[in-house]
Amino acid sequence: MAKLLECALNFSEGRREEVINAVVAAAQGVRVLDVASDKDHNRTVRTFVGSPEAAAEAAFRVSAKAVERIDMNGHRGAHPRMGAVDVIPFVPLGQATMAEAIAMARQVGQRLGAELGIPVYLYEEAATRPERRNLADVRQGEYEGLPQKLAEPQWKPDFGPDHPHPTAGATAVGARIYLVAYNVNLGTPDVEIAKAIARTVRAKTGGLQNVKALGVMLRERKLAQVTMNVVDPLCTPLYRVLELVRLEAARYGVAVVGSEIVGLVPLAVILETARYYLQLEGFRDDQVLETRLWGETP
Amino acid sequence: MAKLLECALNFSEGRREEVINAVVAAAQGVRVLDVASDKDHNRTVRTFVGSPEAAAEAAFRVSAKAVERIDMNGHRGAHPRMGAVDVIPFVPLGQATMAEAIAMARQVGQRLGAELGIPVYLYEEAATRPERRNLADVRQGEYEGLPQKLAEPQWKPDFGPDHPHPTAGATAVGARIYLVAYNVNLGTPDVEIAKAIARTVRAKTGGLQNVKALGVMLRERKLAQVTMNVVDPLCTPLYRVLELVRLEAARYGVAVVGSEIVGLVPLAVILETARYYLQLEGFRDDQVLETRLWGETP
Repeated sequence: MAKLLECALNFSEGRREEVINAVVAAAQGVRVLDVASDKDHNRTVRTFVGSPEAAAEAAFRVSAKAVERIDMNGHRGAHPRMGAVDVIPFVPLGQATMAEAIAMARQVGQRLGAELGIPVYLYEEAATRPERRNLADVRQGEYEGLPQKLAEPQWKPDFGPDHPHPTAGATAVGARIYLVAYNVNLGTPDVEIAKAIARTVRAKTGGLQNVKALGVMLRERKLAQVTMNVVDPLCTPLYRVLELVRLEAARYGVAVVGSEIVGLVPLAVILETARYYLQLEGFRDDQVLETRLWGETP
Repeated sequence: MAKLLECALNFSEGRREEVINAVVAAAQGVRVLDVASDKDHNRTVRTFVGSPEAAAEAAFRVSAKAVERIDMNGHRGAHPRMGAVDVIPFVPLGQATMAEAIAMARQVGQRLGAELGIPVYLYEEAATRPERRNLADVRQGEYEGLPQKLAEPQWKPDFGPDHPHPTAGATAVGARIYLVAYNVNLGTPDVEIAKAIARTVRAKTGGLQNVKALGVMLRERKLAQVTMNVVDPLCTPLYRVLELVRLEAARYGVAVVGSEIVGLVPLAVILETARYYLQLEGFRDDQVLETRLWGETP
């Protein structure tokens, strides 16, 4: 299979359709796999895949349009954010290596800093120091806390100026292995319950390996949600995550009312779900009919 | 997705390898998914998929070779059979419709009759009268009973002559919807329990629509099994079947210890499983990454 990078560029507009469309349309030369907008989060994820060079170019062009169209002053949304372009992760697929993904992350970071005047932090596998690996730490303080953060010596950005962009904030650019964005909706409007459950399932605070979790409020639906990233979902499968959330929610007499996979997910992740719940014995990936029809390398 | 027909052509040779190979090799232009021969049945099933036109052409060529190489006079085998080419079912996949599958069944039937001199009965969705829908009824009397059957007015064939082919008998050609072969293994060696559970889940005897079920013994593993065909598994999904078996087994204090999907299953069937157990909201088939990478029609 070819060298491919997948890029799941997150930008801070999830409500105004014309802005979302303008930003999303800003790049060609890559295959757009998904565009997922969330009004409560006020955020959109545009997922695309292409050769390393094409993916980097597309990421830059989409970022430039987002910086042009989105003013972070007055931005409100349920999801943590520090910039008009909030985070740009590159994921190696096919024959691409992590080193190649890191190289492209650096390249895009350098251009955002030099050409758009955006302070950039490299994170995850691209991080220049251990304390910058974790996106949550990089984003700590969010947009509003940037003036103070950027003034501190240990938070000098990897590229770009030592002060926030006047309207676009700062951006994190990185490389990481595949993750699934997975949200679980609870039968309660109490966001404190979602936050408590997030604490129990998050790896860092005593939960499942590979899980990052936050409790957020879905204002439109009046439901609390545990919003998660599951890194390496073949190591920590989604059913295990869901069932732990369900277990922890039961303490409060709260049920799981639904869940959501945001963006794309590899077939193997779905198959693990089926294998667990159906108690399948010996089910091979190639028993899925379409895998016999696809066959040829893209 | 493209218009595809799957064809599981059954011919009456399961022992002589050179005959099997010659028949199986008789057609190109389609993707062969499986070739399964059974010595006891003295029968082979060649499963292939392609565009409707390619599938119909391949079915005709394979049939022509089987008619050339197989002499039904003296044929012995454990499976009911009436012809060198015994049955040709077409199953619509992807964007193909049942009407298209029926049209191809008719086309192949007409050619078998006109070009090979084979009497042909259209069955299942392609049947020209209600009493010909069921394959077992069409095949009643088998090869040896054909001279009498073909002489009866109500069994005048849909295509071809009113008398059997001298060596190749008759053939049934039809169209049907997808079915999944699904087995559930019970934590008991008591086959009577499996038979009782089969009775409760089988459509005919008060169970789920679209389910045929039998209780059988897995001698090697000393486990009883409910073995099933689930016709139209997007109408009656596998999770519903499993959970009903589980419910009915609980009456006997018996658990489900595993289950098995035999052969190929469409992605959509696996996705329905994930949607139910993960309580997924709004999950689209095209969120599976591979559907985007191998998007081009085969």
